[in-house]
Amino acid sequence: MAAVRSMDDLFLHTLKDIYHAEKQILKALPKMAKNTESAELKKAFSDHLAETEEQVTRLEKVFDMLGKKAQGIPCPAMQGLVEEGKEAMDEIEDAEVLDAALLAGAQAVEHYEISRYGTLVAWAKQLGLADAARLLDETLAEEKRADELLSRLALGAVNRKAA
Amino acid sequence: MAAVRSMDDLFLHTLKDIYHAEKQILKALPKMAKNTESAELKKAFSDHLAETEEQVTRLEKVFDMLGKKAQGIPCPAMQGLVEEGKEAMDEIEDAEVLDAALLAGAQAVEHYEISRYGTLVAWAKQLGLADAARLLDETLAEEKRADELLSRLALGAVNRKAA
Repeated sequence: MAAVRSMDDLFLHTLKDIYHAEKQILKALPKMAKNTESAELKKAFSDHLAETEEQVTRLEKVFDMLGKKAQGIPCPAMQGLVEEGKEAMDEIEDAEVLDAALLAGAQAVEHYEISRYGTLVAWAKQLGLADAARLLDETLAEEKRADELLSRLALGAVNRKAA
Repeated sequence: MAAVRSMDDLFLHTLKDIYHAEKQILKALPKMAKNTESAELKKAFSDHLAETEEQVTRLEKVFDMLGKKAQGIPCPAMQGLVEEGKEAMDEIEDAEVLDAALLAGAQAVEHYEISRYGTLVAWAKQLGLADAARLLDETLAEEKRADELLSRLALGAVNRKAA
């Protein structure tokens, strides 16, 4: 983070952090879809994979607006979240308990993204980057909807079956 | 995570994860309060430190309700978030840019907690642990209020001064 001297730098740094995070999510979601036996959860993970591909494209557009190369920097928080998900898939044998754990892990990922995109939208507006703010806000709305869908699935059946 | 065979195990595992996370936050908040020059942010971090102490006590009551010893297990996601905060404090020299970064980091922490406590409340209810659900829900409401306060501070002055 040595090069962060201004808000422009901090905005770019955080953009790189979430870009790296989204790329990690692109790798994790197919594994999560494969490891769940719930048809609803499988569909939610697969649909979110398609959304995430679009979100990566939006980030690349924002890098482009800034005249910067799209580039990630390792994001320790997301690495930790992905690590927790891998641990669950490796070590929980009961399929329905694993579903509850995967769903909870996906919600932790969504909340990380909601906080980061919320911050990026506010900073983009402050920096006068209206077009970037609009793109980032589209993703923010998608992440919030993804979290709400996961809450409905949890309360609908996943937690009941696991208990 | 080798011992997670049932929802009771998963609930206890997640309780230990957030207990460890809260203990890390107890250590991080005084450093964050010391490193900000914004009086509003200093007060927000100090007030949240007092709240966090109470949240740790609530978690200890929940362990007690389960007849288990209060015990943390390392939480890689929170370790990542704390790591990102340390990096910001070490490497951002401009006080107002640092404030924006610290505030954003605190919101990422709040969102991690909102997701974990949301999950724990739902699981406690599913497992018939009404008293535990009530205590965890009190903390969930506090974390949501803490996040909203941080959003108000960000939009109020912190981002404007930093830009």
